[in-house]
Amino acid sequence: MPYKKVTEQDINALMEICSPEKVYTGDRISEDYAHDEMIEYGQYMPEVVVEVLSTQEVSAVMKYAYENNIPVTPRGSGTGLCGGAVAKYGGILLSLAKMNKILEFDEENLTVVVEPGVLLMELSKAVTEKDLFYPPDPGEKSATIGGNVMTNAGGMRAVKYGVTRDYVRGMEVVLPNGDILELGGKVAKNSSGYSIKDIMIGSEGTLGIVTKLILRLLPLPKKTVSLLVPFKNLNDCIETVPKIIKSKIIPTAIEFMEKEVIEAAEEYLGKMFPDKSSDAYLLLTFDGNTTEEVEQYYEQAAKICLDSGALDVFISDTEERQESIWSARGAFLEAIKSSTPEMDECDVVVPRNKIAVFVKYIKQLEEKYQIRIRSFGHAGDGNLHVYVCKDQLPDEVWHEKLQKVMKEMYDKAIELEGQVSGEHGIGHAKIPFLYESVGSQYMQLMQAVKKAFDPKGILNPGKVVGNY
Amino acid sequence: MPYKKVTEQDINALMEICSPEKVYTGDRISEDYAHDEMIEYGQYMPEVVVEVLSTQEVSAVMKYAYENNIPVTPRGSGTGLCGGAVAKYGGILLSLAKMNKILEFDEENLTVVVEPGVLLMELSKAVTEKDLFYPPDPGEKSATIGGNVMTNAGGMRAVKYGVTRDYVRGMEVVLPNGDILELGGKVAKNSSGYSIKDIMIGSEGTLGIVTKLILRLLPLPKKTVSLLVPFKNLNDCIETVPKIIKSKIIPTAIEFMEKEVIEAAEEYLGKMFPDKSSDAYLLLTFDGNTTEEVEQYYEQAAKICLDSGALDVFISDTEERQESIWSARGAFLEAIKSSTPEMDECDVVVPRNKIAVFVKYIKQLEEKYQIRIRSFGHAGDGNLHVYVCKDQLPDEVWHEKLQKVMKEMYDKAIELEGQVSGEHGIGHAKIPFLYESVGSQYMQLMQAVKKAFDPKGILNPGKVVGNY
Repeated sequence: MPYKKVTEQDINALMEICSPEKVYTGDRISEDYAHDEMIEYGQYMPEVVVEVLSTQEVSAVMKYAYENNIPVTPRGSGTGLCGGAVAKYGGILLSLAKMNKILEFDEENLTVVVEPGVLLMELSKAVTEKDLFYPPDPGEKSATIGGNVMTNAGGMRAVKYGVTRDYVRGMEVVLPNGDILELGGKVAKNSSGYSIKDIMIGSEGTLGIVTKLILRLLPLPKKTVSLLVPFKNLNDCIETVPKIIKSKIIPTAIEFMEKEVIEAAEEYLGKMFPDKSSDAYLLLTFDGNTTEEVEQYYEQAAKICLDSGALDVFISDTEERQESIWSARGAFLEAIKSSTPEMDECDVVVPRNKIAVFVKYIKQLEEKYQIRIRSFGHAGDGNLHVYVCKDQLPDEVWHEKLQKVMKEMYDKAIELEGQVSGEHGIGHAKIPFLYESVGSQYMQLMQAVKKAFDPKGILNPGKVVGNY
Repeated sequence: MPYKKVTEQDINALMEICSPEKVYTGDRISEDYAHDEMIEYGQYMPEVVVEVLSTQEVSAVMKYAYENNIPVTPRGSGTGLCGGAVAKYGGILLSLAKMNKILEFDEENLTVVVEPGVLLMELSKAVTEKDLFYPPDPGEKSATIGGNVMTNAGGMRAVKYGVTRDYVRGMEVVLPNGDILELGGKVAKNSSGYSIKDIMIGSEGTLGIVTKLILRLLPLPKKTVSLLVPFKNLNDCIETVPKIIKSKIIPTAIEFMEKEVIEAAEEYLGKMFPDKSSDAYLLLTFDGNTTEEVEQYYEQAAKICLDSGALDVFISDTEERQESIWSARGAFLEAIKSSTPEMDECDVVVPRNKIAVFVKYIKQLEEKYQIRIRSFGHAGDGNLHVYVCKDQLPDEVWHEKLQKVMKEMYDKAIELEGQVSGEHGIGHAKIPFLYESVGSQYMQLMQAVKKAFDPKGILNPGKVVGNY
């Protein structure tokens, strides 16, 4: 794709659209913008960074870029894990981080209107203060809500509450040519033409730039209880999950964790985890409006766990105790990262009754390739985060082993009727695995969709559907 | 669009693909296939009707039609209300009604796999027998599940449970060129490329033909209670709805009904409604797993209603009593239809705190144009079904008044930040209103999407995005 290089003239034009101090070039561009959380996927310096403050600015920048054939990469907090928000082909990096206002709470429609740069933790706090609830709960709380929508982020509570998609009622987007569209609205139902909103969700900033979001809220559940359940081995632990689902109890979350990962988190946080006598744990959460309502579910779940070989069931019904467990859970990724000089990540999702098969398979790979693999994740919805660690392996051995291990993992996921990504997306790093998984007809259809939105291919090029 | 006319040779080819007795021509084509439930929107006889039995047949028919430039219109039960399943440009009408098997229950993943021709009432029955629950509950129980997915049908329980989209985990589709794609799967999360599944949902058979569905189920709530709440006037009735939502109780359904419509249903069904002392009613349903859980909600709701001018609150906690109310509710459309020689329908959705404004506006239109308008619907989610009745008006007067009333209603819905269709879709009848509502940029984008899926424009032409 022969894109135009950014010139002095372009910089001046951008400075006229936005205020000059919001346009960064040369040394004024932070090195952080060259990558996301996965430095392993390469460094891509943008030619210019533009920090936008309004929909009109986004629209004007896109119009200019479209006319001049300059690639534009939208970016929130840059906390992605697949290289989705890096300027693969240079050009303009469009930071939406400062479009971070919560614009309106509407308690009659149970909606909140936000700009895309609002951080997940800020949204959660503001919503809770109104006694309301935004259910999606991805581990990375400093991600922006815009980024969450663009990857259709899932998180811990998907077992009961579903994923980000389920909470997006409407959005304002800027198309690659600069047109501004309103998609959906505050309405609770909609069958008015193709759901452009729904293909925008999860499109990783390749079809349009979201500049405003109308999110659906729920009343805040009054009571939450977590159970930490130690098992004597991994098998018993993970095989308990489908039994819980089958029993028709609906937990809010079912997370799975192993001793080694818990220990890494303890070290990373400098805080002790309540229990580490066992090799494998389930962490279950239940919510509801009365103690009785929650109790009836967690007592059933506790019984199923004990019948399936659990050694004990620790009930955490105070905020403090829950915090100590969940803060460890929240630190797993960082803890594993800091334990190895390099790593690679895999975010497969499989049908939830296949999670045990998949976890056991990972253990076999670890053995077979003599490489350290750590995993944890959302057992209740079949979404596992697997980290292959380089440790002290020489570069060449590492790359060879990594490639083989990744291929085997993704192949296994496909065999189990899973998908390449549960919640992190594709970015540029996972395109070959997506291709392998969905096949060429599906890729071509997605490329045709991309062309329908972005005929010049200037918006976040090289992502999701690759080069075509 | 210059489509090829169906010839003897084409018929023979279709008979080779499917068995000859499943290919209908001439007098063997039932007149029913020329329209859906809205005879008012014109008669369009297909050149040939093909009743398919398998994905392979659908694929082969599409390949043939694609190569030969013959339009194909997929159809389920034909219970639509916007002319979506009629062969606007002749060609092949592809009936999926006989692809009606429930293929698999998976209790570990809480999913059911079905063919598109399964009727909603059959699905509901089969699921309930397994102590499971498929929440979407549109009024028309003899619609197919394929049709429901293709219009993103909503129904009564959307207040608590959302719409059809929220329960489609995966699907198999045949593209206009005959390619077969698997979209999604049994997985609970998915961020693996553009969600083709989600743009397929609600696309009214214009982007692909669904041949298999993987639906998400929930455990069946153990307890359901309905409240029938009479109000002394329409205002008090309808203005109670946002108060209930704001109170953070979540009813399963909030329906609104007026005396005249109830009386029409009584006459139509030959069955008495439990109460008709009042002009306007709310019908609320609550579900949960214990009597206590349900009680705490409906008692709060009852109090809000009484504080807002309700004359009484009738509690129906037996299946029998609930049946007598809900069967009347289910007959409203048919009852209104049978009361007038001709009518037109409008399925707007507005933010739910605007429903009172909209209902009052309809009353003004009735007065202003001296025309009978009946409405009922899903007050809890802002989705109203409005029926303008011809009665004894002369044709010319009727058409003139109808056109003005419809325009005013849709304009008002747009003003209130509503949408043209909450759940019935666009078909061919509502395209001008969609255009008016979303504007030309949006329409062009949808047309570009249509082209990405269907470059020859042979699949259900003239629907949703019109001719382009």
